[in-house]
Amino acid sequence: MSETRVDGGLPRVLIERAVSEALREDLGSRGDITTDATVPAQATAVATFGARRDGVISGLDVAAAAFRCVDPVVVFEPLVRDGDRVTPGTVVARVSGAARAILTGERVALNFLCHMSGIATLTRRYVDAVVGTRARIIDTRKTTPGLRAFEKYAVRCGGGANHRSGLYDAILIKDNHIVAAGGVEAAIEAARVHAGHMVKIEVEVDDLASLKAALKHPIDAVLLDNMDVTVLRQAVELVAGRVITEASGGVNLDTVRGIAETGVGLISVGALTHSAPILDLGLDFAA
Amino acid sequence: MSETRVDGGLPRVLIERAVSEALREDLGSRGDITTDATVPAQATAVATFGARRDGVISGLDVAAAAFRCVDPVVVFEPLVRDGDRVTPGTVVARVSGAARAILTGERVALNFLCHMSGIATLTRRYVDAVVGTRARIIDTRKTTPGLRAFEKYAVRCGGGANHRSGLYDAILIKDNHIVAAGGVEAAIEAARVHAGHMVKIEVEVDDLASLKAALKHPIDAVLLDNMDVTVLRQAVELVAGRVITEASGGVNLDTVRGIAETGVGLISVGALTHSAPILDLGLDFAA
Amino acid sequence: MSETRVDGGLPRVLIERAVSEALREDLGSRGDITTDATVPAQATAVATFGARRDGVISGLDVAAAAFRCVDPVVVFEPLVRDGDRVTPGTVVARVSGAARAILTGERVALNFLCHMSGIATLTRRYVDAVVGTRARIIDTRKTTPGLRAFEKYAVRCGGGANHRSGLYDAILIKDNHIVAAGGVEAAIEAARVHAGHMVKIEVEVDDLASLKAALKHPIDAVLLDNMDVTVLRQAVELVAGRVITEASGGVNLDTVRGIAETGVGLISVGALTHSAPILDLGLDFAA
Amino acid sequence: MSETRVDGGLPRVLIERAVSEALREDLGSRGDITTDATVPAQATAVATFGARRDGVISGLDVAAAAFRCVDPVVVFEPLVRDGDRVTPGTVVARVSGAARAILTGERVALNFLCHMSGIATLTRRYVDAVVGTRARIIDTRKTTPGLRAFEKYAVRCGGGANHRSGLYDAILIKDNHIVAAGGVEAAIEAARVHAGHMVKIEVEVDDLASLKAALKHPIDAVLLDNMDVTVLRQAVELVAGRVITEASGGVNLDTVRGIAETGVGLISVGALTHSAPILDLGLDFAA
Amino acid sequence: MSETRVDGGLPRVLIERAVSEALREDLGSRGDITTDATVPAQATAVATFGARRDGVISGLDVAAAAFRCVDPVVVFEPLVRDGDRVTPGTVVARVSGAARAILTGERVALNFLCHMSGIATLTRRYVDAVVGTRARIIDTRKTTPGLRAFEKYAVRCGGGANHRSGLYDAILIKDNHIVAAGGVEAAIEAARVHAGHMVKIEVEVDDLASLKAALKHPIDAVLLDNMDVTVLRQAVELVAGRVITEASGGVNLDTVRGIAETGVGLISVGALTHSAPILDLGLDFAA
Amino acid sequence: MSETRVDGGLPRVLIERAVSEALREDLGSRGDITTDATVPAQATAVATFGARRDGVISGLDVAAAAFRCVDPVVVFEPLVRDGDRVTPGTVVARVSGAARAILTGERVALNFLCHMSGIATLTRRYVDAVVGTRARIIDTRKTTPGLRAFEKYAVRCGGGANHRSGLYDAILIKDNHIVAAGGVEAAIEAARVHAGHMVKIEVEVDDLASLKAALKHPIDAVLLDNMDVTVLRQAVELVAGRVITEASGGVNLDTVRGIAETGVGLISVGALTHSAPILDLGLDFAA
Repeated sequence: MSETRVDGGLPRVLIERAVSEALREDLGSRGDITTDATVPAQATAVATFGARRDGVISGLDVAAAAFRCVDPVVVFEPLVRDGDRVTPGTVVARVSGAARAILTGERVALNFLCHMSGIATLTRRYVDAVVGTRARIIDTRKTTPGLRAFEKYAVRCGGGANHRSGLYDAILIKDNHIVAAGGVEAAIEAARVHAGHMVKIEVEVDDLASLKAALKHPIDAVLLDNMDVTVLRQAVELVAGRVITEASGGVNLDTVRGIAETGVGLISVGALTHSAPILDLGLDFAA
Repeated sequence: MSETRVDGGLPRVLIERAVSEALREDLGSRGDITTDATVPAQATAVATFGARRDGVISGLDVAAAAFRCVDPVVVFEPLVRDGDRVTPGTVVARVSGAARAILTGERVALNFLCHMSGIATLTRRYVDAVVGTRARIIDTRKTTPGLRAFEKYAVRCGGGANHRSGLYDAILIKDNHIVAAGGVEAAIEAARVHAGHMVKIEVEVDDLASLKAALKHPIDAVLLDNMDVTVLRQAVELVAGRVITEASGGVNLDTVRGIAETGVGLISVGALTHSAPILDLGLDFAA
Repeated sequence: MSETRVDGGLPRVLIERAVSEALREDLGSRGDITTDATVPAQATAVATFGARRDGVISGLDVAAAAFRCVDPVVVFEPLVRDGDRVTPGTVVARVSGAARAILTGERVALNFLCHMSGIATLTRRYVDAVVGTRARIIDTRKTTPGLRAFEKYAVRCGGGANHRSGLYDAILIKDNHIVAAGGVEAAIEAARVHAGHMVKIEVEVDDLASLKAALKHPIDAVLLDNMDVTVLRQAVELVAGRVITEASGGVNLDTVRGIAETGVGLISVGALTHSAPILDLGLDFAA
Repeated sequence: MSETRVDGGLPRVLIERAVSEALREDLGSRGDITTDATVPAQATAVATFGARRDGVISGLDVAAAAFRCVDPVVVFEPLVRDGDRVTPGTVVARVSGAARAILTGERVALNFLCHMSGIATLTRRYVDAVVGTRARIIDTRKTTPGLRAFEKYAVRCGGGANHRSGLYDAILIKDNHIVAAGGVEAAIEAARVHAGHMVKIEVEVDDLASLKAALKHPIDAVLLDNMDVTVLRQAVELVAGRVITEASGGVNLDTVRGIAETGVGLISVGALTHSAPILDLGLDFAA
Repeated sequence: MSETRVDGGLPRVLIERAVSEALREDLGSRGDITTDATVPAQATAVATFGARRDGVISGLDVAAAAFRCVDPVVVFEPLVRDGDRVTPGTVVARVSGAARAILTGERVALNFLCHMSGIATLTRRYVDAVVGTRARIIDTRKTTPGLRAFEKYAVRCGGGANHRSGLYDAILIKDNHIVAAGGVEAAIEAARVHAGHMVKIEVEVDDLASLKAALKHPIDAVLLDNMDVTVLRQAVELVAGRVITEASGGVNLDTVRGIAETGVGLISVGALTHSAPILDLGLDFAA
Repeated sequence: MSETRVDGGLPRVLIERAVSEALREDLGSRGDITTDATVPAQATAVATFGARRDGVISGLDVAAAAFRCVDPVVVFEPLVRDGDRVTPGTVVARVSGAARAILTGERVALNFLCHMSGIATLTRRYVDAVVGTRARIIDTRKTTPGLRAFEKYAVRCGGGANHRSGLYDAILIKDNHIVAAGGVEAAIEAARVHAGHMVKIEVEVDDLASLKAALKHPIDAVLLDNMDVTVLRQAVELVAGRVITEASGGVNLDTVRGIAETGVGLISVGALTHSAPILDLGLDFAA
């Protein structure tokens, strides 16, 4: 069932912090008043997380942390791994312990798990759509504020790869930068002087003339923005493998395979993180 | 152009905190290395936020705070108000000041504005779909972790209303609570004793028998879950205005009007906050 | 000995955070310099928390967390439960482990326990004073900044109930709101439109004329402010059970029973949280 | 009207942080729903903080920060200074600006101001009670968790002085330390070696024999705990000015003068910070 | 006087946060008790930051923020720019305003400024030592916990460049990774699959055989660790410009030029951030 | 091997917080991408921290916390104690568990351990240089922002003592304070009134005339600033043991013994915390 091998999870310090904030958001200063009123403190329960749609799982460690943060004694057992495909009915995890803790932690656990799995699932659809081509599907910085690390991890769970993490770890020179710097050469030169040796430089171009201008300078990648498939193919041929090629703009599940078949190396899709619907998962209590 | 009057914005303390965290996420420890390298410190710019699709705006104060937090001297002028409808080409705000600050704050401002406007837009579609009925569209606790306040505000911008804020501010008795408490009467009685006098109590039921049982006790609302339209209509008639009625389950843009026409008072839609695609907005620099 | 059954404790995430802040406040950057200098690292001790006055206990989980946060190996055993009455000499908990950790955590544990138990104790005195009437004693938003969740929990431990948690979870329309809105009808109507369906609405009135005006509109509760007992009784009769009645103003241990005997449903007492003296508890080391 | 000159206020970084937390506590994720619904955004107001009892003011800077944090444009004008005595009717401050901001910030401002002024007022009563003696009234570490800096500042506003700030800034050797160290000499010697040269050492004794033992060693102060007035006078004579003398235990407004008349230098009163009722202040809106 | 043009400062959100924490560290809960006692609240002062040694300045924005955070009205005027060389007597900034605020903020401002300028100064000495060669001086991850952003900025002020920011933004494969992966080829291949396209890959080698093995695979840089100058020169020749070359190990001011003259591209120096003495700067008050 | 007995470690709450921040700094949002890519999740390892230079160890609890915070299952065993001297080759701790966790936590653990041990080592050199005199070596407030508690602890590990912790816990009257107060007598008197009884007062003087003036008033210590050895000896004689004497200014390893031989009680050395190079320690993996 396993599909994508995800190397390394999210740093534990990030998970603990995000889960703690989410619980404070849901519990407020008063806690779960329904459960506290109706469920005896000593009651125990066993419940299972089940998939209700086809998809790819992401966020099991985060869900586990949600329960642990409510009550360290609750036991959360994952039955699949992040990156695994599921179908309706697949049991993805089992949780057991105090009934109050399970009911109180349920929504925070699900909110992370469904959101992250939704991103992994949409990513996988794009990845599947380009199978057999050399193109990789990658994300963008168009993420939900506060959750970028979680969303980029989910993209990896779906078989995608990550573009830069933020403004700080790679250089992407766009139109406004070129204008401000006084031309593409000046911009690339400034970037090269400014960046450390471990920082890659990508330049965004939207036509072949700009691409030719950019390729005269030492860069690592070109972002071929909003080109139609014909021009994109010419651009890829023009690059001829000298730098990494990335396509963006107008990408959806209908267009992505055509784009991939131009031979472009990467296709970046903002929708992976800004518009993925959740994967529907539910928590069912054993009778 | 204005459609929905939104009473009161988000608390300033929440906005400042969320924006500051989002900037730290995007800027890391190194800042915007592309802009710092290529754009002169003294360069200024004027840019406008423009809509690229039909939709409803939400989050202008948050976008303003993003720029203010990068550079207190940048001027952000909203040209519409939260809750206003926009069409492709509508200019929603103008930002002017140091070119570096505008480029550096752009993505965080857009990530909030597009996400929140996406929710407002989807909410408005549901609200429009039930126009003329008495049903109101409401949200759920199925929100993105860390952003619930922002997402519930966006629902209001779209003309929807808010369900409870979290586990702490209202009681919603579900199946598992009833079982654990030993019956619907015991659960309601326990809730009534436990809750303060300003806390409302809602009970979830999924058939008419359960509804009748619940109505024997003093409650404020019933959540009619996953009933088909015929049963739902019977349920609404059975309630006969004594308590608030809420429908949930199987709600989408195709089904929502039929549900509304049963006479139910509220229709809760998890998708408003867990699956809304963004509203596409962009920042364009004046030549 | 147990008196009040408290449903559900404080959320663990709140306790951990508050205790950690309190320890940082007491330990500064240097720690407990007296204990570190004089007590050998390997010394162990057993100590008991004892009551020195009659009262009601609240805060045992918080005291336990204080020691756990200094040293996870210390064992804290509660011997009574939150909500229990104690008399001078009652041993409420036993703590054992490293002598240094016990001495270092003592004051933070006591400061929470004595403060919260003081509130529980004062609440219980009010609750006892109205026994046999139908009035419940409730708190207000006049709490110590940063500790509202803890203080409202302590009120519940004393047998009281909670008014709204903050400005966000219920509507309380006062004079200034009515004036600003242009009359009581306009204010209530605006509130009803603005509030979600799970939010209750209370209106403050200070005479019978205002009460009559308010009752013409759909509200959940009336706050009868600063009425003398005669007027208050008339007000309660006028309401005739249609909405919840709350009395406030001029409430103290001498007046509370008279107020309760008017038949009012709730009596709110700011002093519970803003002026309760501590319950005197001490930590005694076994010889 | 001014009574106590308070040298230096609270650090601004502390005030901003505490006020911001208190506002988040009161506003939650939804803000002031009553005010937002009923008060027009453009309405302005002027209101005054007035005393309703005799007392001493403390916390004006904190109250100012509460409004500034809700809305930077609100103007807060103090009309007295921290440490000033007030009587019923004294106007202590005027606030003007957006009516919404004033109503929303009111409770947080008052909660700080009433709590701190309550402590200042009680302190002043003790200070007045010992006037003419050489005794100073001081506080303890028995403070409300999270508010120690604010409470110790309030004690200074009432004319009192501060004992150590926490476990970290001075040494206070008590019984358990002496036992653990193997005697008073060993404890003092260990403390002297451990403490920096800027750290004072105080030893707690409860009879004259222990006092004599302690005085054989180089210490800065003795805490004469729970001695009756006769013994306390003998203790003060025995010390003969060689070290600072502090009395504690059994101190209340009836006993404090007798204790002061023994000639003791300091009288520490836990009740100043753990059991002071608030000073009743209210916010009145101009018609 | 200006030497190094530093592109872009530190993100404002980082500066505000670090300065606020540093002030809390120095002011504790009580503030500057010496200044509060001895300096009248209304006294004003003008003071200048002066260099007492030759060096390079870094941290002026941070020093400015320290004063602004104590008192927003204080005026801080830089008279040089970060990256400028100074000599004993150079006035680097002037600060004016309330005497209390200047005295209270002085140490935090100086602690940042002297620490950062110390790093910039040491970096500049290394940079000057290799002038005329093609080698650039770069830093490492051996930074002071919590201050990496500030220290890496200071390295840039001294004319150096930055290695990766952390474990997250570039791949550096060391011995243990190669062993764990089962050889250099497997390690590089795993890294290539795992890393996004904007992440560079560097491999550490310590002899020519390992270097040859690494160069067979697609990597961006090699870290030539602990090679003597003769071997290092052979390594550089062997690489022949195909990838970036970095030398590390045994680098000090005596050896760095010899290393640079091998033609290596980068020389990383842990001491820049882990062992730089401060640059001595002082604050002098105008008479 | 043990040299300095360090009474009491750093408060656990401080360690957890600092380590968690440092890990977030090094791991960013993406974690250790090299290790995640190349080291199998199930691989285990054993590694030892070894000294590469002579020095004194400080920070073992902090290093342990770094690994625990990455992975609670990693075992960290200290083999020496803080304050112990080490020589090249001394194994100071052994760490075992998941290879990924050890590699990921390595740098944060080392950055604390090397920095703190560097300070302990430099302190020990000063302490050794004055052995046989009565002078103690003490630190200053010239610490690295955010790490003062850790650095002052390291000074104690090196056999030094601590000056005040911050501006808040002791009074140090300098030139500017005296001028502002209107003379040394006024300054001391103001300080005495302002300070609590547990706060010591030190006055800085730079010549014998000022010293004589200061000694007329009740103070605890004098800071003899920048006096040459001859004058310093006269100053010490003039004080004649009545107050603590501290020398500062012009202190280095060449001058410190001469200064100590004047009989001065304390010698404060800013370089201990602002300019100590690290102690070189490394982590070696068992084959």
